[in-house]
Amino acid sequence: MNAFNEVEILLVEDNTEDVEMTLRALKKNRIANNILVVPDGVEALDFLYKRGKFSNIEVTSHPRIILLDIKLPRLDGKEVLRVIKTDPDKKTIPVIMLTSSKEERDIAESYQYGANSYIVKPVQFDKFTEAIREIGLYWLLLNQQ
Amino acid sequence: MNAFNEVEILLVEDNTEDVEMTLRALKKNRIANNILVVPDGVEALDFLYKRGKFSNIEVTSHPRIILLDIKLPRLDGKEVLRVIKTDPDKKTIPVIMLTSSKEERDIAESYQYGANSYIVKPVQFDKFTEAIREIGLYWLLLNQQ
Repeated sequence: MNAFNEVEILLVEDNTEDVEMTLRALKKNRIANNILVVPDGVEALDFLYKRGKFSNIEVTSHPRIILLDIKLPRLDGKEVLRVIKTDPDKKTIPVIMLTSSKEERDIAESYQYGANSYIVKPVQFDKFTEAIREIGLYWLLLNQQ
Repeated sequence: MNAFNEVEILLVEDNTEDVEMTLRALKKNRIANNILVVPDGVEALDFLYKRGKFSNIEVTSHPRIILLDIKLPRLDGKEVLRVIKTDPDKKTIPVIMLTSSKEERDIAESYQYGANSYIVKPVQFDKFTEAIREIGLYWLLLNQQ
């Protein structure tokens, strides 16, 4: 299972259209090759803690960044964020909330829980693509880990 | 003291050359107009908590972002970061460490203390300018507060 050995981006997203747009933007701009997509909060934590279907994989390092939706099936993004940011071993992974929610409460709670950044998904396709490009360039090329 | 009413960027930096380069990059790209520069950690906290020379100013809101050097006179950047990120009222301000230190310990401690991002200052002038531009665009235009 070599594909999981070095996950650059863990994308936690249940909306298949958003997943497709994100992958297209990242690949078009050659920002990242190893992207793991999981559709809900439980699978996100399963991957990070090598549980469930990820219990037998070999992962040598943390993902470089996590792009995390808020409204997710089974376990929502804020709860996933809380688990990551209260674990001393995992809290250094940059977590970027990528969501359609502009609700004050979601934004405030995300920062309270330790989100590194909060991005509202642009509705228009070209602006969405541009946002993904900027996120990738900033966090994978400029930011230091 | 209207100039302080809306600080977009609080720049905590003692190196005057770096201050000049940062201001030039921000203004050249029209990213921010209201930038407050303070030369050490004590003045940074004085501004945020309206103490000392900032006790009589009227500030209506938090700075939108804080660019924080690590090696600072009087009180170092990691201590400033720790104070901000343990204060529920202030911890939502994005703090971007902007430093020449590539030391593992500085990077790890900064993330442990809750830094939103850690950027190593590029040595070359044009790369420094480009980094400041990217930081400004990302945090002032794309990131949501």
